Amino acid sequence: MGVCSLTKVLVTGGAGFIGSNLVDLLIQGGNDVHVIDDLSTGLREFLNPEATFIESDLLDDSFDVAKACEGVTTVYHLAANADVKDGWLHPDKDLHQNVRATLRVAEACRLAGVADLVFTSTGSVYGEAKIFPTPETEPFPRQTSLYGASKVAAEGFLEAYAEAGFFGVTIFRLVSSLGPRYTHGHVIDFVRQLTSHPDRLMVLGNGFQEKSYFHVSDCVRALTSLRGQSGANVFNIGRPDTTTVRESIAVITQALGVSPDVQFGDANQGWIGDNPRILLDTARAQAAGWVPQWGLREAIEDTVRYLVDNPHLMATASA
Amino acid sequence: MGVCSLTKVLVTGGAGFIGSNLVDLLIQGGNDVHVIDDLSTGLREFLNPEATFIESDLLDDSFDVAKACEGVTTVYHLAANADVKDGWLHPDKDLHQNVRATLRVAEACRLAGVADLVFTSTGSVYGEAKIFPTPETEPFPRQTSLYGASKVAAEGFLEAYAEAGFFGVTIFRLVSSLGPRYTHGHVIDFVRQLTSHPDRLMVLGNGFQEKSYFHVSDCVRALTSLRGQSGANVFNIGRPDTTTVRESIAVITQALGVSPDVQFGDANQGWIGDNPRILLDTARAQAAGWVPQWGLREAIEDTVRYLVDNPHLMATASA
Repeated sequence: MGVCSLTKVLVTGGAGFIGSNLVDLLIQGGNDVHVIDDLSTGLREFLNPEATFIESDLLDDSFDVAKACEGVTTVYHLAANADVKDGWLHPDKDLHQNVRATLRVAEACRLAGVADLVFTSTGSVYGEAKIFPTPETEPFPRQTSLYGASKVAAEGFLEAYAEAGFFGVTIFRLVSSLGPRYTHGHVIDFVRQLTSHPDRLMVLGNGFQEKSYFHVSDCVRALTSLRGQSGANVFNIGRPDTTTVRESIAVITQALGVSPDVQFGDANQGWIGDNPRILLDTARAQAAGWVPQWGLREAIEDTVRYLVDNPHLMATASA
Repeated sequence: MGVCSLTKVLVTGGAGFIGSNLVDLLIQGGNDVHVIDDLSTGLREFLNPEATFIESDLLDDSFDVAKACEGVTTVYHLAANADVKDGWLHPDKDLHQNVRATLRVAEACRLAGVADLVFTSTGSVYGEAKIFPTPETEPFPRQTSLYGASKVAAEGFLEAYAEAGFFGVTIFRLVSSLGPRYTHGHVIDFVRQLTSHPDRLMVLGNGFQEKSYFHVSDCVRALTSLRGQSGANVFNIGRPDTTTVRESIAVITQALGVSPDVQFGDANQGWIGDNPRILLDTARAQAAGWVPQWGLREAIEDTVRYLVDNPHLMATASA
């Protein structure tokens, strides 16, 4: 009575788009939230002031990750290089930031006795999937990007830790998220262009790429509500529908009230390794009680609204 | 006429068990064979004297791997940490030796314009497989060891290079090999014990683990004959039958002419992450023209014969 014992949780990448939304939800839920972020892509303005903030790089050998995990029940490991498009400009970045950093976090969890680890993977691990919507049991995929390869690598190492009984692991394979603090992807690219020159829009690829997106609030609700208690669990999360780039442009231009001349490329992918179609089968997550609340159109509109309200993000954030 | 233009090929790990057998076959085939090996587990005595030997560690930043790849048509990347059992004693060893080293070789191939890369992966990537014999298209597996995770990671990065069009990649998922220069695994463990004390044998696990093995000469013939010319190709290779540890012991003790008291453990796996059953579906490799020539019993007997003829390997090599 009167003594409040909060659950201590740790979020890596807690100043990022998804991470900071997750931190907000965890603090609303009454947790003692600690955040590790190196602010390489995360923004200090996204960081909940009630969180305990450790500004550190997970790859810094002098940073004692296990110490940061002391007394922590659940680690949400979201820190990652999320730049799929430019992987070939720095071919070992995904290895270090997505695989080696994950192994450092896993080893810290083992040393500190953390009960479970939540990991954000990606629908890109399915490469060019053969089945749509794609289930978690898709035939052993071939990787099509360094990013996807790095995420499947991190998944594998975490599964080995779970198999050895060191801690429970819940892996979420996400489609792209939309909503507040979105700073990276086609919506910001298009809104930035159309803010600068409302009369024309340049599009990578032919616009027929067809992808699922979901709202970040649905994403972080899945991360907190679906985690398993032991072993390795894998959940696809995303909306059950898709939008093409062309349909997305229609929503964005309508929300902005502009009618640009749209110029498309020839290719059916935006860049090398881009998956022309992403649609995940989320039946497993839904059977466990999670259902996305936001529609796809509403999620795009909410993102446009957020970006228009925060024009400084379009000036500073990398696309 | 009179000018002999040999094909230059590079074998990493060319002083190892499989690597040195591969080097011999490639030299017999008239290739100009270069070998990179750091002799951490490979042995100089295994090295074909006709090969050009570069004694280097692929992880040494001062070693210019791309220079070693200049003029090379095919790189056979076999150098790896093959110790599955003791992964948890050094949890980042698989990451560095199997993933980071592979990425360094891939990047060198890209820079040097190598046409194709052959990679030796493992049947362990299927974890605890759901289908036996296990096809290459097994449902997306969960990893059960750091070793398996590191190999699936390396596969993924190589597939991304192939997908981007930098070079062709042929991935071989191997069962364990047997035969000349075998220095690691249950046969040497048992022969070593029985040489030291012919009356008793201690066995990890309950002896019912059921695995496929094949002869190293069948293995290296697959590596040289099945490689694809472009894109990423994956082949399971191994025998279509299995032996249990108990059956293997019967062959070994008969070959040695001993009748030990055999003591088994309780577990259905030899160690954490050991896969109690490994049997690969090799229909894809067989459709491409490769068939194993050696029987399983004959492969075990050949291994015992080799070890008895080379007792110094049992004294020095790690088990």
